[in-house]
Amino acid sequence: AEFRVAILTVSDTVASGAGPDRSGPRAVSVVTSCSERLGGAKVVSTAVVPDDVSKIKDVLQRWSDIENMDLILTLGGTGFTPRDVTPEATKELIEKETPGLLLVMMQESLKVTPFAMLSRAAAGIRGSTLIINMPGNPNAVAECMEALLPALKHGLKQIKGDKREKHPRHV
Amino acid sequence: AEFRVAILTVSDTVASGAGPDRSGPRAVSVVTSCSERLGGAKVVSTAVVPDDVSKIKDVLQRWSDIENMDLILTLGGTGFTPRDVTPEATKELIEKETPGLLLVMMQESLKVTPFAMLSRAAAGIRGSTLIINMPGNPNAVAECMEALLPALKHGLKQIKGDKREKHPRHV
Amino acid sequence: AEFRVAILTVSDTVASGAGPDRSGPRAVSVVTSCSERLGGAKVVSTAVVPDDVSKIKDVLQRWSDIENMDLILTLGGTGFTPRDVTPEATKELIEKETPGLLLVMMQESLKVTPFAMLSRAAAGIRGSTLIINMPGNPNAVAECMEALLPALKHGLKQIKGDKREKHPRHV
Ligand code: NA
Repeated sequence: AEFRVAILTVSDTVASGAGPDRSGPRAVSVVTSCSERLGGAKVVSTAVVPDDVSKIKDVLQRWSDIENMDLILTLGGTGFTPRDVTPEATKELIEKETPGLLLVMMQESLKVTPFAMLSRAAAGIRGSTLIINMPGNPNAVAECMEALLPALKHGLKQIKGDKREKHPRHV
Repeated sequence: AEFRVAILTVSDTVASGAGPDRSGPRAVSVVTSCSERLGGAKVVSTAVVPDDVSKIKDVLQRWSDIENMDLILTLGGTGFTPRDVTPEATKELIEKETPGLLLVMMQESLKVTPFAMLSRAAAGIRGSTLIINMPGNPNAVAECMEALLPALKHGLKQIKGDKREKHPRHV
Repeated sequence: AEFRVAILTVSDTVASGAGPDRSGPRAVSVVTSCSERLGGAKVVSTAVVPDDVSKIKDVLQRWSDIENMDLILTLGGTGFTPRDVTPEATKELIEKETPGLLLVMMQESLKVTPFAMLSRAAAGIRGSTLIINMPGNPNAVAECMEALLPALKHGLKQIKGDKREKHPRHV
């Protein structure tokens, strides 16, 4: 596959074994079913961590810097509760913000529910890895991915850009 | 009341006594009239400060850390003039950004006037307090609150989340 | 003219002489044709720099701090490729963010192409200078300017605000 994808479920409940991971498997299936429209994408790693900044950062950093993932989706931890810290962990790691991805996901989610305004999702590029926070709600992953699909393949190719094409810039 | 609300008018003109505070009283009345939809909200403090970063920060910090407000609305100081520094003061204090609240307020305001694009409002969570910058225009407060109402009660409950509910996370 | 405008083309290709600057001249012509709606705007400087943070910053800082530009438009370098660093250079210099300008430009651009979501444009105020990142695509400059025009003149006047008017605040 062209793009290596990793999915991180962020949840105290799941990490402690107190509940099943409903979001992770759903996200794997969403990515798999979108693989062709993404130009070939395969989920090569999944993990679960509690809502803890340093544990979230550890996995994101390893996946970006050592395991060379092209795309990391985090699931959950983007709300308003005191334990929701996924965006804060993410923002400490990203080198370039990608606000347009957040806007289209938010606009899509707001069509489904006004509670979408409570998402504090972050997104950005670290090295050659795109990291996107998605909601923990299993249905929301499909909605967010749908919003990104018209440009995500192009964005992922751009991130790998200067290695293979001289003038890939359309934006 | 379930939620303690404080309202800060930020204006050199009002603070110096050169003009009346038209926004503050209007905001109190907007919150009072929305109280039921917010699950019970009461304005327990109001204040006026000049457009000065440290004076704004002093009040926001006291209301958040000592007086345990659930929601603070600031009014004014979000435009493009050199004296407009409310977002800068706010961003120095918030620990978690809440960009979705800003988006829905901006989208609602843009329906009324294109000048809304000049709002530089910030919003976020400090401890268990939600701080939201609103425009100084008295009518704009009602519009912004209308945009937030479908999810604000839920957001305020989430901020108090882990003290009373184990799994409140919908986002 | 009321407002002094400078336009910075950010492109390795153009800076190295490997290709023509199609965006810069187009942006000059867009500003010139909008001059009246901007209350009088004249492009007084243009430059080309490679996609290099310190070279971008050098020009932006000189134009803001020494040459007293009212408005600087950068063109290009806002995408996802490793060389795209215009927003990072810009964010290091701006003192006040202007997120509403980014939102209306993004919303306008998304009507034309979903690839607009890949724009990472930043915008903000440094001293009395407004700096706005625009896409490198020559057509996109006109679209972005169209989105800003309903409020840009007012915003530029606000930035010069306290020198000439006591109470210019509408936001
Ligand atoms: Na508190």
